[in-house]
Amino acid sequence: MAFEFRTTRLVEFSETDMAGIVHFTNFYRYMEQAEHAFYRELGISVVMDVEGQRISFPRVHASCDFRKPLRFEDTVEIRVIVREKKAKSFTFDFLFTRLPRGDSDQSEEVARGRMTVVCVAKDAAAGTMKAVDIPRAIGERIEAAPAELLASLDAGP
Amino acid sequence: MAFEFRTTRLVEFSETDMAGIVHFTNFYRYMEQAEHAFYRELGISVVMDVEGQRISFPRVHASCDFRKPLRFEDTVEIRVIVREKKAKSFTFDFLFTRLPRGDSDQSEEVARGRMTVVCVAKDAAAGTMKAVDIPRAIGERIEAAPAELLASLDAGP
Amino acid sequence: MAFEFRTTRLVEFSETDMAGIVHFTNFYRYMEQAEHAFYRELGISVVMDVEGQRISFPRVHASCDFRKPLRFEDTVEIRVIVREKKAKSFTFDFLFTRLPRGDSDQSEEVARGRMTVVCVAKDAAAGTMKAVDIPRAIGERIEAAPAELLASLDAGP
Amino acid sequence: MAFEFRTTRLVEFSETDMAGIVHFTNFYRYMEQAEHAFYRELGISVVMDVEGQRISFPRVHASCDFRKPLRFEDTVEIRVIVREKKAKSFTFDFLFTRLPRGDSDQSEEVARGRMTVVCVAKDAAAGTMKAVDIPRAIGERIEAAPAELLASLDAGP
Repeated sequence: MAFEFRTTRLVEFSETDMAGIVHFTNFYRYMEQAEHAFYRELGISVVMDVEGQRISFPRVHASCDFRKPLRFEDTVEIRVIVREKKAKSFTFDFLFTRLPRGDSDQSEEVARGRMTVVCVAKDAAAGTMKAVDIPRAIGERIEAAPAELLASLDAGP
Repeated sequence: MAFEFRTTRLVEFSETDMAGIVHFTNFYRYMEQAEHAFYRELGISVVMDVEGQRISFPRVHASCDFRKPLRFEDTVEIRVIVREKKAKSFTFDFLFTRLPRGDSDQSEEVARGRMTVVCVAKDAAAGTMKAVDIPRAIGERIEAAPAELLASLDAGP
Repeated sequence: MAFEFRTTRLVEFSETDMAGIVHFTNFYRYMEQAEHAFYRELGISVVMDVEGQRISFPRVHASCDFRKPLRFEDTVEIRVIVREKKAKSFTFDFLFTRLPRGDSDQSEEVARGRMTVVCVAKDAAAGTMKAVDIPRAIGERIEAAPAELLASLDAGP
Repeated sequence: MAFEFRTTRLVEFSETDMAGIVHFTNFYRYMEQAEHAFYRELGISVVMDVEGQRISFPRVHASCDFRKPLRFEDTVEIRVIVREKKAKSFTFDFLFTRLPRGDSDQSEEVARGRMTVVCVAKDAAAGTMKAVDIPRAIGERIEAAPAELLASLDAGP
C-alpha cells in the first residue's frame, strides 16, 4: 500500500509565457502527470477496462497556490501525497519543489496543489458516465497518508 | 466601475482529451482569457508599462470545481465576478455555463472557478518581481461586487 | 461550393512564450480551428457519425513558414484556401495576417501554412481506423480553389 | 562535433484528443523539446546572453508527416539529425518511433518532421530581433550529418 510518490521533470520552453515564467496552467498538467506516474509505478494505468466498461478518473476539483515562479530548464520535483481515499474518489496533495541549479543554489518550494478525482465508468453505447467504486486493483495498492504526515503538510513549508 | 463581465467561447477540438471531454486544464486558460477580456472591455491591458516598469498580474491562487463535462463545439459562457479588491490584488469568481445546442436543450452550469492575481512590477535589469499597488488606471475601473451578489453565488447553482 | 474562408482571433496570453511572441505550435492550433470553423460555416461538423461509424479527419501533413512574430493581443486573420480535393483527402493553405493595431499600423502577412487531412472511419469495436471517401454532405459543399487563385498564392506575399 | 541525438518521452493524457490519439500539435512540441535536449547534452542552452544580447532560436519553418497515431502511455523515441548547418541557421530532421509495449509488439516509425531555426539577437531596449551568426560555443559543437546518413533518411522508412 502506497501513500506517496515523487517524480521530477524539466521545464520546457513551450511551457513558459511572455512574463518569462512557467504559465500557471502547466502546474495542473504536472499534477496530472505525477498522479499517472504514481499509478504506473504501482503497475496500474489510469485508463482501463473493467467488466467491459471503460474506467477513468475525471477531476472534480483542482487548486493550486503559487509562491515562486519556475523558469525554463528548471528541474521541478513533484511530490504526490494521498490526502484522502474514499470508495469512489481520491484526493491528492502536490508539493512542487524547484531543485538547485548549482552548488550556490538552494531548493525551494514553489507551489502546492490539490486534486480530487472520481472513478467513473463510461457506457460506450449511451455515452454517459457514472461514478463507481474504485476498482480493487487500484484500491488495494493506494491508501491515505498517516495523519502525522498530513498534519506536517498542513503546518506549511 | 465594473464588477462583472460575460464572454463566450466555442470549445476547440484541440481542447478535448481521449475521454471525449474538455481537458480540465483548459478551464484555467478560459478563466485567464475571460479576465483579460474583462480588462480590455474597460480599455486596459493586463500587460503595461508604468513609470518604466513592466506591470503584470501573476496568479497566486487558482481553483476550479468541475460538475459537468464540456464537449467539442459546445458554447460556454464564462461569467467573471470581482469577489475581492485589495491594494495589490484581485480575486475573481468564474461561472462556466454550457449554452443550449438547440431548442430541446437547456443551459447548465458546468464549473466554478476562483483566481487571485497580484500586481507585480518587473525590474528588467535585475529580472526580479515585486508586488506593487494596482495602477490607478485599472483600480479606478474595477470594484468588488455587492455583498448580495456574492452571497447569492455562495448559495450555489 | 466553397473554396475559401476567413476568420480572426485574438492572441491569448497563454499562447506566448518567454521570447515574448506566440509559441510556434499555436499556429497549428489556429489552422485546425480555422478549418473547423470553415466546416461549421457550411453547416457541417468535423466529427460526425455516418452509417454507424465515427468519421474524423486526422492530419497526415502539416507545415508552416514563419515570417514575422505575433504578440499578445494581436488580432490575426486566418484565411483558409482549398488547395486540393481528392476522394479521401483535402489539402488546405492558410495565410496568417496580423491586422493593424491602430491608424499608424499596417497589416502584414506573418505566416503561411499547409495541412492535408484524410477522412477516416473508426471502427468502435476494433478500435481501428481506415481511410474512406469523404461523406457526400461535406464533399458537395467544398471544392478546390480556381487555378488562378492558387497561382497568385504561389507567387508569394 | 555532434550531428545526431536521441531522446524518449512518454505520452501524457493531456496530449491526447477526443479521437483517442496524440493531438498533432504535440509532435511540434516534441521536436522542440528534443532539439533543446540535444543542445543541453552538448553543454549549451538555447537561451543565452552573448555580449549583452539575448540570443534565441525562433523557428522559420516546421513541418511534419504523420503516418501512424501515438496513444496514451506510448513511449516515443525522437531522433534528431542535423540536416543542414549555415552561418545563421540549423535545419533538423526528426524521426518519431513508437517503442514496443511488450514482447509481441514491434517498434514502428510514426512520423517525420523537419524544422529550420534561425539564431537571432534581441535588443532588449528596442524590442527588435535580428538574425545573427550562431555563437561559436554552439557552432563548434554541432555539424551537418554525413551525406550518406541524409541519403538513407531520404530513402524513407
